[in-house]
Amino acid sequence: MSDSRLTERSIIAALSRIFDSPLPPEGIGDDCSVIKVGRERILLSTDMLLQGTHFPEGLSNREKGYMAAAVNLSDIAAMGGQPRAMLVSLGIPESMRMVEIKEIALGIKDCARRYGVSIVGGDTKRASQLTISITVVGKGSGRLLLRSAAKPGQLLAITGTLGGAAAAYLKWKKEGRSTKRSRLTKPMPRVIEGIELARSGTARAAIDVTDGLALSAWYISRASGVRVEIEMDDLPLARELKELDLDDFSKREALLYWGGDYELLFTCQSSKMLDKVRDRLRTPVRVIGRVRKGSGVYLVANGAVSKLEERGYDSFGSARRTGKI
Amino acid sequence: MSDSRLTERSIIAALSRIFDSPLPPEGIGDDCSVIKVGRERILLSTDMLLQGTHFPEGLSNREKGYMAAAVNLSDIAAMGGQPRAMLVSLGIPESMRMVEIKEIALGIKDCARRYGVSIVGGDTKRASQLTISITVVGKGSGRLLLRSAAKPGQLLAITGTLGGAAAAYLKWKKEGRSTKRSRLTKPMPRVIEGIELARSGTARAAIDVTDGLALSAWYISRASGVRVEIEMDDLPLARELKELDLDDFSKREALLYWGGDYELLFTCQSSKMLDKVRDRLRTPVRVIGRVRKGSGVYLVANGAVSKLEERGYDSFGSARRTGKI
Repeated sequence: MSDSRLTERSIIAALSRIFDSPLPPEGIGDDCSVIKVGRERILLSTDMLLQGTHFPEGLSNREKGYMAAAVNLSDIAAMGGQPRAMLVSLGIPESMRMVEIKEIALGIKDCARRYGVSIVGGDTKRASQLTISITVVGKGSGRLLLRSAAKPGQLLAITGTLGGAAAAYLKWKKEGRSTKRSRLTKPMPRVIEGIELARSGTARAAIDVTDGLALSAWYISRASGVRVEIEMDDLPLARELKELDLDDFSKREALLYWGGDYELLFTCQSSKMLDKVRDRLRTPVRVIGRVRKGSGVYLVANGAVSKLEERGYDSFGSARRTGKI
Repeated sequence: MSDSRLTERSIIAALSRIFDSPLPPEGIGDDCSVIKVGRERILLSTDMLLQGTHFPEGLSNREKGYMAAAVNLSDIAAMGGQPRAMLVSLGIPESMRMVEIKEIALGIKDCARRYGVSIVGGDTKRASQLTISITVVGKGSGRLLLRSAAKPGQLLAITGTLGGAAAAYLKWKKEGRSTKRSRLTKPMPRVIEGIELARSGTARAAIDVTDGLALSAWYISRASGVRVEIEMDDLPLARELKELDLDDFSKREALLYWGGDYELLFTCQSSKMLDKVRDRLRTPVRVIGRVRKGSGVYLVANGAVSKLEERGYDSFGSARRTGKI
């Protein structure tokens, strides 16, 4: 009998109580966990991706490997950490041949090398579905960027553009393989940006938006106990999204709820501080809103303010996903 | 089309080449990986256990959780490390209810608490089969115990007894639930022993014997480039194994090839050094052989010397298992 009440949120709530974990940053509830070993702050991130639920249709094995590594690096980036080493565990179905396993490994290696990360260990097991479980270990660099560090008066900013992954997926569904597909299949976790924003003290709260902008903003709102306002007109639309002939509803869905973009959403004290680090980042950053007293996440569009829904991607099939261990 | 040539060994060989990992202890090929972060040596171990291949029949959910944690702690113990924190990723099948998920979490918690380890993060995903992927982070304590550190002239020793897990399984298969089953379902990773053997400088090479005594001795032989001799009469048989009415062949299989015992196999310079630490260990240790020049693993029984087969547990269904990332 299946238990229809199961959502990622309900499971995580139950596990957190049982595990009796310390609070973030040490414990459950931020992009990474942080532990102190001797004098060092060690950042830890782990993600398990499974065939059937986690990879967009039509991804090659090499792209699957790349993506599994990128998801974890993005979590380290969101805390301002420097990724150092990676453990790779593969669950391999019987139908899979050696050449396919090698392709997955090459994809993981592509991503790890791009960010100077060594693959130092892992595990391989027989499984009924392809499973890639990766753990990344990183080092703190400067201030840790916590979801809980947003304060009224701060600005809300984002790296890069939004909707590129959604657009690439929609275009690929319509037209088949396209040259723009790398936005979806070879994302660039904002590791350099995260380190620089942390090292310089520019960013305070941060999170990645892989689960969607709305949900990520909700995470910050809940963890910090603040109201987050996003200006629709200031959102940096990806060129690929502009080029698609979408109606307003679909465009809004892609921008706010779709996810798949590997950008950093963060708060900072002032535009001036942001201007000081722009040159050292590899991608543009843009102010898209502000933090106020209160609670919830709101969108300002054409002078009207509306509350954003607290939803995004959930592997348990619900439209809501509101937690991550 | 299934690829019948796939074994854990062949996959790991291919992955190691692609990942271009550094050599142990930094990279692939010992019980843990070791990385330096600042001034600290961080030990990392990861294991993925899946329903259908990795849990003995009849295990409760709580026992599955416990075992998944214990496997990783044993890897840290085998390097002489102090386990600090754990990340827990669960792949949860649709048929599983919340009460069952909680039982798994309680089992993991039981084991983590026993060894003072915090659970600081993880991931939960929908999966087609129950998957428990755990990563443990530890801290080096004294000399790192590497598989490659055995030298001719050293003694070979082991903690605790052998065959207890095999006996518990055989007994349970015959009689149903029995009080002795905890040897199989609630193993005691030798964390205290590993730390003490490392801290005091007593042990040189070490490995755990969860995959079986023969295979573990082969790992040491290959990594160190030495011949390992084991004295059959000196092996510490578990009481549970003695009590079973097994023929000689079955008893030998259980002792040498079965696995499931969470003991440490290690080398040391002399009996005298071993005697000095006995009081500080929680379990007896016993000399069971010696390291010589040459290669391979040999059993000395009734004055005759025979080569041991290089086999143990392999989740890919082959009788051989000769590698671990």
